Amino acid sequence: MPPPKIEVCFSPKLYEHRLIKETFIGVVADIFRATTSICAAVDYGISKIIPVAGLEEARNMKEKGYLVACERDGKLLDFADIGNSPSDFFKEDLIGKEVVFSTTNGTKAIKLVAEEADDVLVGSFLNVGLIAQYLALKNENVVILCASWKNLFNLEDTLFAGALADVLLSSGFETECDSTKASLDLWNIAKTDLPGYLRKSSHRNRLKHLLTERDYLLSLSLDSGKFIPLFKEDKLIPVTP
Amino acid sequence: MPPPKIEVCFSPKLYEHRLIKETFIGVVADIFRATTSICAAVDYGISKIIPVAGLEEARNMKEKGYLVACERDGKLLDFADIGNSPSDFFKEDLIGKEVVFSTTNGTKAIKLVAEEADDVLVGSFLNVGLIAQYLALKNENVVILCASWKNLFNLEDTLFAGALADVLLSSGFETECDSTKASLDLWNIAKTDLPGYLRKSSHRNRLKHLLTERDYLLSLSLDSGKFIPLFKEDKLIPVTP
Repeated sequence: MPPPKIEVCFSPKLYEHRLIKETFIGVVADIFRATTSICAAVDYGISKIIPVAGLEEARNMKEKGYLVACERDGKLLDFADIGNSPSDFFKEDLIGKEVVFSTTNGTKAIKLVAEEADDVLVGSFLNVGLIAQYLALKNENVVILCASWKNLFNLEDTLFAGALADVLLSSGFETECDSTKASLDLWNIAKTDLPGYLRKSSHRNRLKHLLTERDYLLSLSLDSGKFIPLFKEDKLIPVTP
Repeated sequence: MPPPKIEVCFSPKLYEHRLIKETFIGVVADIFRATTSICAAVDYGISKIIPVAGLEEARNMKEKGYLVACERDGKLLDFADIGNSPSDFFKEDLIGKEVVFSTTNGTKAIKLVAEEADDVLVGSFLNVGLIAQYLALKNENVVILCASWKNLFNLEDTLFAGALADVLLSSGFETECDSTKASLDLWNIAKTDLPGYLRKSSHRNRLKHLLTERDYLLSLSLDSGKFIPLFKEDKLIPVTP
């Protein structure tokens, strides 16, 4: 059997054009902030996350009695219990609970990949190593979808893809796509000082109102997590390799 | 007045999502092979290039008496006079002539950019420096469109974007987009040995039947050209800064 392949999609808009079409595990990254917050939440002890895309859906879930994480433009919405940043989930009374998480890009990306992938994993710098272990055990093709920002290429999701590809290529995975190679080369530039590298990027403009310094550094702490959120029946549940 | 901005679009699929919407000069790159061949052709002395997308259009132009460059899968089509590689245009009897060039991706990208851009320039490694001079004199925003391969990110077009951004950023242009920064970082890795760097990329698989070693090296000879092909009234004409 040939070695499994890795492909990186820099935007949901490029996902349909990917080379790997059948039999793959999908990994979704929306580093600032959705997928990192989801990883941080399950690490802290939230039992399940229900990702929803729109505000309407989030409000409906709140009316049904769910705890809801929902903000727009950095502001907590009137009906919401929790914000969208990683540290917003660090509250003891959330441990063991199911939480609805409203995130447009992240949810869309997760559901898009779930249509065809055998499994969908939620990735962040917190669980790169765990995801690599999981994927190496499964030995299937891997498609990494960068949720991106307004459908445009972004550096933080790309660096996550590079970090994951770095481990997988060392474990015998192969790649045919230039996007994987570019991600890897960029990761090799950034990895010695990830927070410093990304400070120079456009995220600073995009996120200065959304992300505190604490959450910024937390989002970039490599392999600090314990779980991989796996998408199953519309919910994200924590698994380990 | 604020300094002009640079934006890089890694695929025609991402072009519509770009941040710079109004008042810009577009630069189109399809390094292997369309835009490099167009640059090489006008450098050699071809007076005008008429880019067409489909085979049908190319055949019609042949019937109207035009010289036609047209191949598919590395084979010259029965009605065509010239192939699609840069060195195919190095024939003395083509000097001073108008030539129809059939290229799907390249033509589509040029016409897409022409819809809104003030000017559309055809870029390749042959004329990076000339294009930078032209753009510095115009002092307008710049959108670089990588024609890409099957709508997917490719390294060679990205490196061209990085090479051009490198000169422009030194001339006072600014950028807000991560794709420009990524292109620049990749260019800084590749620039000391561009042919060696790209040999490791996916282009080798995609192009081994299409590009001779001579054309490969020619396509990567930085600043070896004399002209910038400018798109005007459906034709590409050679200009200088």
